[in-house]
Amino acid sequence: MARIVMKFGGTSMAGTERIRRVAQIVKAQTDRGDEVAVVVSAMAGDTDRLVNFCREANALYDPAEYDVVVAAGEQITSGLLAMTLQALGAQARSWMGWQMPVQTGSAHSKAKIDDITTDQLLESMGAGQIAVIPGFQGLSDKNRITTLGRGGSDTSAVAVAAAVKADRCDIYTDVDGVYTTDPRIVARARKLKAVTFEEMLELASVGAKVLQTRSVGLAMKENVRIQVLSSFTDEDAPAADTIPGTMIVGDEEIEGSDVERQLITGIAHDKNEAKVTLTRVPDQPGAVAHIFEPLSDASINVDMIIQNVGRDKGETDVTFTVPAADLARATDILENMREKIGFNRVISDTRVTKISVVGVGMKSHAGVASTMFSALADRKINIQAITTSEIKVSVLIDEDETELAVRVLHTAYGLDAE
Amino acid sequence: MARIVMKFGGTSMAGTERIRRVAQIVKAQTDRGDEVAVVVSAMAGDTDRLVNFCREANALYDPAEYDVVVAAGEQITSGLLAMTLQALGAQARSWMGWQMPVQTGSAHSKAKIDDITTDQLLESMGAGQIAVIPGFQGLSDKNRITTLGRGGSDTSAVAVAAAVKADRCDIYTDVDGVYTTDPRIVARARKLKAVTFEEMLELASVGAKVLQTRSVGLAMKENVRIQVLSSFTDEDAPAADTIPGTMIVGDEEIEGSDVERQLITGIAHDKNEAKVTLTRVPDQPGAVAHIFEPLSDASINVDMIIQNVGRDKGETDVTFTVPAADLARATDILENMREKIGFNRVISDTRVTKISVVGVGMKSHAGVASTMFSALADRKINIQAITTSEIKVSVLIDEDETELAVRVLHTAYGLDAE
Repeated sequence: MARIVMKFGGTSMAGTERIRRVAQIVKAQTDRGDEVAVVVSAMAGDTDRLVNFCREANALYDPAEYDVVVAAGEQITSGLLAMTLQALGAQARSWMGWQMPVQTGSAHSKAKIDDITTDQLLESMGAGQIAVIPGFQGLSDKNRITTLGRGGSDTSAVAVAAAVKADRCDIYTDVDGVYTTDPRIVARARKLKAVTFEEMLELASVGAKVLQTRSVGLAMKENVRIQVLSSFTDEDAPAADTIPGTMIVGDEEIEGSDVERQLITGIAHDKNEAKVTLTRVPDQPGAVAHIFEPLSDASINVDMIIQNVGRDKGETDVTFTVPAADLARATDILENMREKIGFNRVISDTRVTKISVVGVGMKSHAGVASTMFSALADRKINIQAITTSEIKVSVLIDEDETELAVRVLHTAYGLDAE
Repeated sequence: MARIVMKFGGTSMAGTERIRRVAQIVKAQTDRGDEVAVVVSAMAGDTDRLVNFCREANALYDPAEYDVVVAAGEQITSGLLAMTLQALGAQARSWMGWQMPVQTGSAHSKAKIDDITTDQLLESMGAGQIAVIPGFQGLSDKNRITTLGRGGSDTSAVAVAAAVKADRCDIYTDVDGVYTTDPRIVARARKLKAVTFEEMLELASVGAKVLQTRSVGLAMKENVRIQVLSSFTDEDAPAADTIPGTMIVGDEEIEGSDVERQLITGIAHDKNEAKVTLTRVPDQPGAVAHIFEPLSDASINVDMIIQNVGRDKGETDVTFTVPAADLARATDILENMREKIGFNRVISDTRVTKISVVGVGMKSHAGVASTMFSALADRKINIQAITTSEIKVSVLIDEDETELAVRVLHTAYGLDAE
């Protein structure tokens, strides 16, 4: 017997027919004798509908009341899934965020989970009752409904799994696992049997949209084993969890496993970056701080930074990237600081892509970066910026060359399926 | 300064534009210095949508999970109204049923309110914050969401008014008050300034669909003064509550007031009755009990009963009315009891209307019934059955004569507007 937390997203919960399919998957899990808690999202589109109501009601809405409104979406699907499970002959009941409770801070609409009380929950699960838990919602210390921010249901699932000490947290989604790269770009992309938390963090944050970054960080901290798998298998196919997805686990579990360790695990791309260049910045101590402090104060996340070699005596160009969504704000802030910083022009470019090769294997292998640079150079792909971490090398290139670069690197690192 | 509970139904809450109008009405009330709690229904149609989801999910749905699902409708509107009030510059916050809490029994989907804890609520209202309360919902002693049954928001409003000792409970609806009769039938129907709880109970239960019967019963028990008024006045018109609706109050308040006491307060009609006649029932002790016991066991509400004078020796016809919705069930039950009861045929007729004249004034005046009978006789309207209470006389007539009968009686009792 295992204790499993299962999580289903909005697409899987969109309508009573799909909820029935989810109930069948959950029932199959319990029929094998496992204790199960299910965390659910709202029906796809329902949260958007509720958010729009809030915007119409009050452009500057009170986040506490926003949470009251949008938490209703998951309340609805959790009640519906519980009664659908009962229709299949299973025992089930819903547990609202305030009932367990899922205790959070008071930062409404972006709350963090502090603690989940599990006494009653575990007692009920131990008695054979499936616990159905609305994702995304919690209770503040002021006894008010909170939500965790968009996509927070993955985080709820991992937090519940940690709290009940689950053997595994199965995240059912509309893809059947984590791939070496985007299969829409590279037909020979392979589904990975396992990746480490660190790898998944890098892959998630650079554009492999399988899991919320935040939930992976929490899983790493709490050492919750995650499995990503699809809820969209055929009704006639074997039960979904007999088609393994991708396990996301600790380093040590992979090192000790049969999974042949690749140097590189995957290649991600992210088109949501924008490049900013300030020309003719004074080449003197403090100049760079003048640029990045105000951006940091405005919570704008600067990623890649290059300070060019000074062209003219005492002047240099500074290039960096920001999220494309923050570009207008960043440009405004910089223009207002023109005199203080002392630059000539702000040049921005959104037609760029960040390509990242990710793998824990590179910790112990040199030459990963040079393989990347020469593979791209062979195809005359110009590298505009570079950034690295222990398990990642990223380059910024022209957006038009995205697909070519991903394919070239996928082959160069030997990731292509047979 | 007064303490007012205001209640808005689903039509008033249908969409953010209408919620804005509601917020204006509420804001106007507080601007006069009153302490205000607002009880709201779900958006019109939303509860039906949620109920349909439940039916699709599980035909024999668990009422505890049904309550989780359908309570979401009022949760949404209460959050939206609170933020809309804030947009108008008012202080407001929502209070879920489980937050105060509104403590109920555990009869899910038809719970009764036991107690409302008001300490925090009154503190907040005293500090100038408008309390926005989702109607229809409560919390069981097992810490689970309950609902009060359809139309329960009126009951929530009256219960909150009783708990906070409100000076008045204003129920905003799509009519602007209680009329002497249905204005669609009698153009000269007059809006009543005041009716007693007892009169309202009779008027509500016989077809004047302004307030839930249950809420009027509670108001009478707790002596909560209700005002019925319309939320659909023009934006340019004076504030809604300066156009008085109808007060529903205790006997003593009307007796001591300037309101000229009419003998008859109003005339109601109810087309949802069906007439059943059993022919040739043995005219002996116990026969009637054999008819009505099984109907009572099946919770079928028998209203008017006539036992005709025996035609043949030892046999009689028995006629009575049941709600039209229960007719098929009632007929089935009786057919199954044919041998035990010993009747010949069951004859049923849904083409009947119950017309009632209602008024506390008739307690002290004789001749009310005879005025009714002769007015109807003058127009050759045949009376098929009669029933009376202290403050009501009802007759059963052919459905085709409904409008004529209502008009004739409205004139006969001097109710026509000048």
